[in-house]
Amino acid sequence: MNAEIIAVGSELLTPYRQDTNSLYLTEQLNELGVEVRFKCIVGDDREGLTAAAKLAMKRSDVIVFSGGLGPTEDDLTRESVADALGLPLQRDSQILAKLEERFAKRGYKMSPNNMKQADVIASAAALPNPLGTAPGQFIAGKYDGQERLLMLLPGPPHELRGIFENECIPRLRARIPVRHIATRTLKMALIPESQVDARVAPIYKTYTDVETTILAGAGEIQLHLRCRKESQSEAEARVEELAEKIEDELGDAIFSRKGETMEQIVSFLLQMRGMTLAVAESCTGGMLAERITSLSGSSRYFLGGAVVYSNELKTQFANVPKALIDQHGAVSREVGAAMAEGIRKRCLASYGIGITGVAGPTGGSEQKPVGLVYIALAGEEGTQVVERNFVGDRQRVRQFSTLQALEMVRRALL
Amino acid sequence: MNAEIIAVGSELLTPYRQDTNSLYLTEQLNELGVEVRFKCIVGDDREGLTAAAKLAMKRSDVIVFSGGLGPTEDDLTRESVADALGLPLQRDSQILAKLEERFAKRGYKMSPNNMKQADVIASAAALPNPLGTAPGQFIAGKYDGQERLLMLLPGPPHELRGIFENECIPRLRARIPVRHIATRTLKMALIPESQVDARVAPIYKTYTDVETTILAGAGEIQLHLRCRKESQSEAEARVEELAEKIEDELGDAIFSRKGETMEQIVSFLLQMRGMTLAVAESCTGGMLAERITSLSGSSRYFLGGAVVYSNELKTQFANVPKALIDQHGAVSREVGAAMAEGIRKRCLASYGIGITGVAGPTGGSEQKPVGLVYIALAGEEGTQVVERNFVGDRQRVRQFSTLQALEMVRRALL
Repeated sequence: MNAEIIAVGSELLTPYRQDTNSLYLTEQLNELGVEVRFKCIVGDDREGLTAAAKLAMKRSDVIVFSGGLGPTEDDLTRESVADALGLPLQRDSQILAKLEERFAKRGYKMSPNNMKQADVIASAAALPNPLGTAPGQFIAGKYDGQERLLMLLPGPPHELRGIFENECIPRLRARIPVRHIATRTLKMALIPESQVDARVAPIYKTYTDVETTILAGAGEIQLHLRCRKESQSEAEARVEELAEKIEDELGDAIFSRKGETMEQIVSFLLQMRGMTLAVAESCTGGMLAERITSLSGSSRYFLGGAVVYSNELKTQFANVPKALIDQHGAVSREVGAAMAEGIRKRCLASYGIGITGVAGPTGGSEQKPVGLVYIALAGEEGTQVVERNFVGDRQRVRQFSTLQALEMVRRALL
Repeated sequence: MNAEIIAVGSELLTPYRQDTNSLYLTEQLNELGVEVRFKCIVGDDREGLTAAAKLAMKRSDVIVFSGGLGPTEDDLTRESVADALGLPLQRDSQILAKLEERFAKRGYKMSPNNMKQADVIASAAALPNPLGTAPGQFIAGKYDGQERLLMLLPGPPHELRGIFENECIPRLRARIPVRHIATRTLKMALIPESQVDARVAPIYKTYTDVETTILAGAGEIQLHLRCRKESQSEAEARVEELAEKIEDELGDAIFSRKGETMEQIVSFLLQMRGMTLAVAESCTGGMLAERITSLSGSSRYFLGGAVVYSNELKTQFANVPKALIDQHGAVSREVGAAMAEGIRKRCLASYGIGITGVAGPTGGSEQKPVGLVYIALAGEEGTQVVERNFVGDRQRVRQFSTLQALEMVRRALL
């Protein structure tokens, strides 16, 4: 079965915004065995959108619309798809009541333009949207004698994902033939892509029935393996065999084999060992703490930390002796180590991390250039410090630094 | 004039890769006064691509293809566009000679599949590509009696940009009328989109010559104004007039009028007043500090802060009395205020921010549900605390909380 994704919104035709929902939708559809054959991006333009919907119904079995379900006059997905199908819109009184309730709860009066969010295409099922105002819609019907499945989803990613997972997947599963697909995602941190490819290409090239894709970004290398077979066990066996051979080659450089993030792996290892973590950040300015606490339940192993941007705070919150800063400078191996040790002690944590460096683009010098970062890990067994010279802009230097810190925790816990 | 961008390549239909060339192309086309009306992403599929090309020629004046010009059998853009136009491909002996030379220079013998990169659609101009093997192609012709401009460009971004700038822009300038464009971007924080629209729609609707787009995301509302006129001064005057009327209506809810981020505005205001900031974060876990320090030079006004995830650290780093936490709970108005006051005092900052809440998805209770967040700002003039019930996932609750904190600093500094 083939799918088409139509992202709606004039903002997606500007230089400022990009459709990202289609990546999530593609992943989900692929897992159901549905291939995405086309993606279209259409503005808030009723005629253009109706034409796109008609074309999609001609050539694609599954059509997912994202966006254009809001309350403004520019939100035209409902109207356009109804036009394309030749079906009327009907105002749903239950949805309307819920909308009014939602506004009342927050102490707002609902403005009349919101009412159109209660309009549902005749024959469509309204899909509850607990995270937003506009419900989704699901239509299973025939077009030119062909079975077609249409979904209308709101543009905000968290709303779209919620509805797709809770409402669309069960409906799709009930209607499309089961295909067996097995996937693996192997991840590595801070290794050059070309090096990974040189080592694993001779292996994966012998597996012509497994699709292998290498991607690099933000310091991470991902190897995506994907295999379709007549049975799930056959697909799993094949993809597992290749994954194991690659793991034999790359060893513990691989930090994740089921798509887990580095934060998730570190979280798992810390909890398994009953250990805790605290951080003292200078140039990363809170990014490491933010990454760690992006996971729910992180309070079980993350105690907290300090963003010690000024030298005074390095002393006050992370016990770094003023004399040490005066002697070596704030960006130094010694101060990095002292930050890790100090925050560990102050927070009574199993591990303490200290990061100090020059994130740039300003603040570099000949001796301490932009991109120079010291990352330190202090534990019961002592303190290790890594010196790195990261290349790239401020955001990239900070991302690489926090990934390096997490990788050090991971390796210490292995 | 209207344009359509067709990105070609099956990798762009996977969950891992995204077309990004279209953002660059859109920016360039907009500057020429050409609007992008549609974007399509098509796989390496001759039939699908030919159909997409035909549809584009029906509805769009300018059509840019990116990708699918390489040497492999999957590279089908040349063939498909030729099919759509009903024109033959002709092998260009000069291009062929250059290809052979390029390979010889690097010590390779050219493999036969590379020869197809010398195929040019009859009537097309070949566009030199100094950075790669495949030349671009430019076609100016009629289709169904309509003037059409087609460009075929290679997928690698640096090759595409080089050819577009050096070869396409001069050809487009020679063929399309000069238009002058002025733009403004007004931003607001934490106001419902529908409320903004209800207030400003009556204003911008009277400016039919200014295109107004409302975007919402991560708690921010953006109003993009865009006007095309015969002269630049005329366009600027018109867009400025509308911007001023909208500003009169929305007042200081507008935090930015030239596209600046909230972090930039707060940075500007703090520096102008010579004031400093420190933060104590619980549920946002470092995200506020990370946002503030994402700007180079933030050390001039940001001293640092503490991520006080555990109750002990709330006391140790932000001076929150243990008794206060015992009495009101860590997520409370009182503890939020104490965090802001404590961190302000500890860091000797002009302003202190405290954030405590339930980011979810776990950890909520009936009295303190997921999304409940207290954001406090302490300054010389006293402490204010805002209670919010944010809806959405963990990431969203955290984003909204940090934006709320920055908005409070901004308003205090106005």
